[in-house]
Amino acid sequence: MRALVKQSAGPGIVLREVPVPSFGTSDALIKVHHAGVCGTDLHIWEWDSWASGRIHPPVIVGHEFAGVITQLGPEAGASGLLAVGDAVTAEGHVVCGHCLQCRLGDAHLCSRTRIIGVDRDGAFADYIVMPASNVIKLDGIPTEVGAIMDPLGNAVHTVLEAKVPGSTVLVIGCGPIGCFAVGVARAAGASLVIASDFNPKRLELARAMGAQVTLNPGTDDVVARVRELTSGDGVDLVCEMSGHPSGHAQAFAAARLGGRVNLLGTPSRTTEVDFARDVIFKGLTIYGVTGRKMYETWHQMRRLLTGGQFDPRPVITHRFPLAKIDDALAAIRSGDAGKVILEIA
Amino acid sequence: MRALVKQSAGPGIVLREVPVPSFGTSDALIKVHHAGVCGTDLHIWEWDSWASGRIHPPVIVGHEFAGVITQLGPEAGASGLLAVGDAVTAEGHVVCGHCLQCRLGDAHLCSRTRIIGVDRDGAFADYIVMPASNVIKLDGIPTEVGAIMDPLGNAVHTVLEAKVPGSTVLVIGCGPIGCFAVGVARAAGASLVIASDFNPKRLELARAMGAQVTLNPGTDDVVARVRELTSGDGVDLVCEMSGHPSGHAQAFAAARLGGRVNLLGTPSRTTEVDFARDVIFKGLTIYGVTGRKMYETWHQMRRLLTGGQFDPRPVITHRFPLAKIDDALAAIRSGDAGKVILEIA
Amino acid sequence: MRALVKQSAGPGIVLREVPVPSFGTSDALIKVHHAGVCGTDLHIWEWDSWASGRIHPPVIVGHEFAGVITQLGPEAGASGLLAVGDAVTAEGHVVCGHCLQCRLGDAHLCSRTRIIGVDRDGAFADYIVMPASNVIKLDGIPTEVGAIMDPLGNAVHTVLEAKVPGSTVLVIGCGPIGCFAVGVARAAGASLVIASDFNPKRLELARAMGAQVTLNPGTDDVVARVRELTSGDGVDLVCEMSGHPSGHAQAFAAARLGGRVNLLGTPSRTTEVDFARDVIFKGLTIYGVTGRKMYETWHQMRRLLTGGQFDPRPVITHRFPLAKIDDALAAIRSGDAGKVILEIA
Amino acid sequence: MRALVKQSAGPGIVLREVPVPSFGTSDALIKVHHAGVCGTDLHIWEWDSWASGRIHPPVIVGHEFAGVITQLGPEAGASGLLAVGDAVTAEGHVVCGHCLQCRLGDAHLCSRTRIIGVDRDGAFADYIVMPASNVIKLDGIPTEVGAIMDPLGNAVHTVLEAKVPGSTVLVIGCGPIGCFAVGVARAAGASLVIASDFNPKRLELARAMGAQVTLNPGTDDVVARVRELTSGDGVDLVCEMSGHPSGHAQAFAAARLGGRVNLLGTPSRTTEVDFARDVIFKGLTIYGVTGRKMYETWHQMRRLLTGGQFDPRPVITHRFPLAKIDDALAAIRSGDAGKVILEIA
Repeated sequence: MRALVKQSAGPGIVLREVPVPSFGTSDALIKVHHAGVCGTDLHIWEWDSWASGRIHPPVIVGHEFAGVITQLGPEAGASGLLAVGDAVTAEGHVVCGHCLQCRLGDAHLCSRTRIIGVDRDGAFADYIVMPASNVIKLDGIPTEVGAIMDPLGNAVHTVLEAKVPGSTVLVIGCGPIGCFAVGVARAAGASLVIASDFNPKRLELARAMGAQVTLNPGTDDVVARVRELTSGDGVDLVCEMSGHPSGHAQAFAAARLGGRVNLLGTPSRTTEVDFARDVIFKGLTIYGVTGRKMYETWHQMRRLLTGGQFDPRPVITHRFPLAKIDDALAAIRSGDAGKVILEIA
Repeated sequence: MRALVKQSAGPGIVLREVPVPSFGTSDALIKVHHAGVCGTDLHIWEWDSWASGRIHPPVIVGHEFAGVITQLGPEAGASGLLAVGDAVTAEGHVVCGHCLQCRLGDAHLCSRTRIIGVDRDGAFADYIVMPASNVIKLDGIPTEVGAIMDPLGNAVHTVLEAKVPGSTVLVIGCGPIGCFAVGVARAAGASLVIASDFNPKRLELARAMGAQVTLNPGTDDVVARVRELTSGDGVDLVCEMSGHPSGHAQAFAAARLGGRVNLLGTPSRTTEVDFARDVIFKGLTIYGVTGRKMYETWHQMRRLLTGGQFDPRPVITHRFPLAKIDDALAAIRSGDAGKVILEIA
Repeated sequence: MRALVKQSAGPGIVLREVPVPSFGTSDALIKVHHAGVCGTDLHIWEWDSWASGRIHPPVIVGHEFAGVITQLGPEAGASGLLAVGDAVTAEGHVVCGHCLQCRLGDAHLCSRTRIIGVDRDGAFADYIVMPASNVIKLDGIPTEVGAIMDPLGNAVHTVLEAKVPGSTVLVIGCGPIGCFAVGVARAAGASLVIASDFNPKRLELARAMGAQVTLNPGTDDVVARVRELTSGDGVDLVCEMSGHPSGHAQAFAAARLGGRVNLLGTPSRTTEVDFARDVIFKGLTIYGVTGRKMYETWHQMRRLLTGGQFDPRPVITHRFPLAKIDDALAAIRSGDAGKVILEIA
Repeated sequence: MRALVKQSAGPGIVLREVPVPSFGTSDALIKVHHAGVCGTDLHIWEWDSWASGRIHPPVIVGHEFAGVITQLGPEAGASGLLAVGDAVTAEGHVVCGHCLQCRLGDAHLCSRTRIIGVDRDGAFADYIVMPASNVIKLDGIPTEVGAIMDPLGNAVHTVLEAKVPGSTVLVIGCGPIGCFAVGVARAAGASLVIASDFNPKRLELARAMGAQVTLNPGTDDVVARVRELTSGDGVDLVCEMSGHPSGHAQAFAAARLGGRVNLLGTPSRTTEVDFARDVIFKGLTIYGVTGRKMYETWHQMRRLLTGGQFDPRPVITHRFPLAKIDDALAAIRSGDAGKVILEIA
């Protein structure tokens, strides 16, 4: 089969022919139809310090995908809930199932997590093997949407870890996950969703996803505008998707007294925080978002999608065949792309 | 001023001229523009056993209203948050502020509650006096909507006492509050809202408020249909608005394992419950809904209304002048009415 | 090996020699040291309507136990968290892992649950096979305590499904699980724990577990006394462990406005409930308790036990060898026993 | 009457004769028996930048106290819940009651809060006037304990904003509030409480309050020791009471994946935070603690105290008469004191 492989320590990803993988008794073999390309894949291509410290080549890249089950190990089919021919996606975090976090319902925080496309073979290929427990049926959701349910799930986790109906929400950073967060917040009953980004193209996507107000920190005083729009109170919930120290500062300042800041954007450096002014005297709650809750987030997301409350497709701006991975990564590198997907089958 | 007064022990309500009420330092005097008529008012007219045990005539009837502040006691205006000329509605439960429930944020359960139009003079009049703490600014919501925020708040309380985004909801009983609950559930991000009632006119109102499926227990097997619509699981949340033992039975049977039943409909008799089968082995949560949370419910409701997520006006089916209270009550008695309101100013 | 077997449809349980069971790749083979005897075992002996509808003889009886791992399937040992020689107990509910409830963290409500000693071979034997995922390490807890962590877990689940620190708690029904609930409530920081039962011996056990007040409904007006002890308010939490309609009535009457009733006692018949007076106007929350949360309850329980906050051993009133199962069941039948255990190894 | 007055802009507090204050219709006049001295009073004496920016002399100092009601305004007594002769303490934050935070049950975050002894006359005097709504009956709690329920409430708020029964807790900083937090955590059912401070005397107080392990960052590797004591996991809850950047760093490192850090210690400068490593990838929740929840915290605290689960008196290390305020402040300045109180009547 075809596969995009991180072949060796150093920049680059190569398209190769490799054997269709073998699978165990509790596994599903899935023919990949669509796959999402992510900033993480760019880090792997570029072999930055994170990638060189974590990846052990050769490994097939790609962790966002959807496709169709072509074979099931005997135990994988035993529950009767999965069948050959089912259109599916999958949680790409393969967890241990035994540690404290796995036992307490926090499997998304399992410290033994092995991520597909990073720690084990991934989805930029004709086939991928997944443990049946990680497989999610699409129930009518198209595979091009299924292929982006991993980052969409990040947004669902970020937004729904708050009481959303009737609330006011600020989304800082309108990359694909930020734009998804805008749509999720609206679908979940937020009364006002404000989105902020430096890039006008991204703000356009945010508006397409339902943001009632978009702000550009290059020209707008974000915190002042948020206060104006909220009778001076600030917002109930900030979803911080930028990872920038300035995003953190805006998040803490724009949240209302007693509000909540959910942090998803991964910072590459430290932030100076005035805990007294910004957290303690404000009675703020801050929550760090890792991955997707297994499997509450997936269930909520599937409901929102099949209920027709939310369509993430306006965020998909680029589609490439498998062989054009370099073009796909270039689109991400440009900063103007929404979600970039590979059309594989 | 004009007022509809429960004049004496026995059936009837009379329109009378009475003095404009005097008010205290912490009170607001409000000119009533619209008022909602409720089943409770019918009980008071009919002087049933509840009414005769509770009401001490003479008392001005009516507990749902909106209007405009015409005067403020000196302390009522001190906060700067209320001003003469403000369009407002009010929480009709005047609570003690000192008991355990008031102290723990459960003021809606204060056992010393005095209800306007029941225990103290009410709103079917040109003017009403309210403690400033009970007054809610409308912030652009029309007074005819403000006049029904009391029963609408019951629906908001019932629905939002659950995790709604992405959930499946069954509303049993489509009187006005049931219809409101349908709309609130949709506005709050429910993926599927099923409504059930014997009366086709009420089911039509429920559809107008957004119910995707309506069921008539006279012809439909409600529980079987709910299971079909939910992959056999049952719904996440049942809002029981009928108060009938058969509604309770359907509620417990239609809720999923681990689901929730919020009870608002006031039963007039007892229900036989199989706690083992219906509650314990199902891991069910049941919650009894009294009034509106003070003031979280009001805040959420105002946000949903001003955010344009929800318009309750399709439920208003009848409008009468103050003098036509008997016609208004007749409309309620018929069972076909949605919400009935009085146009006072 | 020796095993107590439900041999055929009809009363009785017999001690037999059977082969040591074989086990799968994800299983642990456990040598049983102690086992708890439960009312369920009595139903199975007596072959009542529940038993005859559910049990398919022959099956080894017993679902509460602790012992030592003697062998591990290759995948069972892979996590490194279990090892031969570990003293362990186990969750006796073997769930599917794939249904909605399993996926949402409500595996205790999985409708495909197979219970050891009921639906598959149980623990009244020298050895039992358990899926590794169900096995819980004792971490220093003695096996005679480990053997009762199943019913103790019921009590932990019942009590901790409420905000306990500083609360007032009424436990209705002081069988073993009720007595455990008393101890758990005290360990979890309840300020006042009241216990109620008709049997003075059980009330003595409740006092031994820390109940500050014990009431006998035969001679005490339970609800009146509870109100006296709580400044007229009623308690924050009722743990209903009796399953009797009179227990339900007391529970609803004794809970405070805005309080909580957690139901564990399994009723054998229906209860007439005045939902208006007892649930809706009181703003009550009712929760049905099934089994133990997997595995939050086990984690909390192990912490309370290893932290020395709670010792359930005063509730163990009888110890028998495996061959004396009929005497063990007779002790339970008498109604005077606390917890009855079998000493097997 | 006697009063300790901040007389003018500049260092110092003076003992003066002033008139007994007059009181309004909703107020209580309270004869002060005991008062607690706090670091805030030291700031006021020293006239630091915070004090000079906030305080408008002359003002009577002191915000922690208990005493006996000697007079009640007519509305203050109307509820029947307060009476002349009642021993009481009071919440020292006088809030507006009308803003979003007051309306949503977050009155402790009211931005119009006026604090006694800071923004209005305080408790270091023979008498103080309090709004009746702020007054808390002691119900048998001695006034010397009542006098420290303000800082004790900070500890209750910090600890109980987490699921404590069966949890592991690290308290960083063992000033009086840290020591109280140790005791509250034990009373609320924590299984393991670890306390950390540089000062051996404070660690001794922490042990007296129930800390099972005490650590000194001067000689112990706090994070490494916490991991050792928690099977490598880290603790469920960190109560950060020091306000030092190094305390924050330890807090984030010592909390388990999915754990919680509640921040109370007020930092005087910013902290550099690695949000990626310490918050996002750990799935941490951070909560900023301001004051006491009104009035849930007070209710919980009174229950823990009257239930005998917790005695804060070992933390009281110094007692002075009113005239010896300079000695009292010197004791605080030394860093060795636990709680310092004034004996006034």
